[in-house]
Amino acid sequence: MDIQIKKYQGKMEYSYTLGAFPTIELLKNKPEKVIKVYIHPDMDSVSQKEIVEGLCKKNNIPCEVSKKNVEKLRDKENCFLIGLFEKYEDSLEQDAPHIVLVNPSDMGNMGTILRTAIGFGIKNIAVIEPCVDYFNPKVVRASMGACFQANIQRFPDFASYKKIAGTRIIYPFMLKGAIDLQECPIEKNTNFSLVFGNEATGLPDWYAEEGQSVRIRHENTIDSLNLSMAVGIALYEFTK
Amino acid sequence: MDIQIKKYQGKMEYSYTLGAFPTIELLKNKPEKVIKVYIHPDMDSVSQKEIVEGLCKKNNIPCEVSKKNVEKLRDKENCFLIGLFEKYEDSLEQDAPHIVLVNPSDMGNMGTILRTAIGFGIKNIAVIEPCVDYFNPKVVRASMGACFQANIQRFPDFASYKKIAGTRIIYPFMLKGAIDLQECPIEKNTNFSLVFGNEATGLPDWYAEEGQSVRIRHENTIDSLNLSMAVGIALYEFTK
Repeated sequence: MDIQIKKYQGKMEYSYTLGAFPTIELLKNKPEKVIKVYIHPDMDSVSQKEIVEGLCKKNNIPCEVSKKNVEKLRDKENCFLIGLFEKYEDSLEQDAPHIVLVNPSDMGNMGTILRTAIGFGIKNIAVIEPCVDYFNPKVVRASMGACFQANIQRFPDFASYKKIAGTRIIYPFMLKGAIDLQECPIEKNTNFSLVFGNEATGLPDWYAEEGQSVRIRHENTIDSLNLSMAVGIALYEFTK
Repeated sequence: MDIQIKKYQGKMEYSYTLGAFPTIELLKNKPEKVIKVYIHPDMDSVSQKEIVEGLCKKNNIPCEVSKKNVEKLRDKENCFLIGLFEKYEDSLEQDAPHIVLVNPSDMGNMGTILRTAIGFGIKNIAVIEPCVDYFNPKVVRASMGACFQANIQRFPDFASYKKIAGTRIIYPFMLKGAIDLQECPIEKNTNFSLVFGNEATGLPDWYAEEGQSVRIRHENTIDSLNLSMAVGIALYEFTK
């Protein structure tokens, strides 16, 4: 594919990783999507360079030293490695636990959620539109490249998600949730969906009817927990 | 205090809040530290404006409409309110649980940790230097103003912290921790310190000798959990 290198915009058909860690994750997990890797001549980690060059060689991926292209795309001076990749679509595995993010809007949260979900062994993430562009390089970086291990599927609304979700227990997380997380009965061997609303607005009230609504108890000294924090705490409790 | 308004730098004796939410938290929790409040003429939330003006009046704090000063300090166009405040030093309460952050370096993490800690009822935060400047407006914003409810005290090293910490159980959180968080015996009515290392390097090995080392189990598909996530999960488990 011949590409004129440009700063990322959502409408582009490709995106890129910024820095060594996400680039290596990309090469390990989605080598078939990688278009090209650019190495800055000032990159001084020999070991990372060897890993990257080895993975590129093994997968027949072009790898080029290019000061100009790295400097054009990077947003921080300490970034010496860029991995261009084609965007792709995943499909959720039906027989697996899911996280459902309803209208997530913050790139840092999205990345942190992906990283944490992978860390707790949950790979399948449904995203209800409108939503943040999870291929944005800032999301990829915030996920530390864990996004390349996830199956992320977008849906226009919650009803569309439910059509493909199969048999499972749905747990909407809400400030007004009916039970506290620590008292929530978690059935082993039953698939579940943990559902979370937008950063500013949370889930609309009608989600309480969609399953067993749950709240994470906190003092009223704060408005709410940060979204990625709520997801992480729920994942810890549901997978421990 | 007569101040020439300047963009924040760490060496300054004052800092400021960006936006309505942190400014209202500042006015509610540390009114004695507030120097002045600036309102942008385009601020359109009448209710927030009334709250701010009411709190200023009650506490004899000057409140001025100033397009110029708000635009000089803000970094996002949707910020219409700035609260200038004097920096201050807190002292930890000895008879209370503590969080100890060893060399935290990321402003977003620091703010999220403060917000989460206050949410779980933990107000006392020890910070071991070198550390991020927790009065930076970005930290204040990431904390959603929860920083003004916290007691934060800096220490040159962990030994200095221990001198004032009183009787308590120390739990260093480490990837090589001796027990898993969910199996950690948590003694009611005994004070504790939850100790976390730097984002990139974690705690040095010798911290394992300082108390009951704990790990938060996750898959090896990721390098580690995000620091603020680890703190949040630990807080959830220790306070539930």
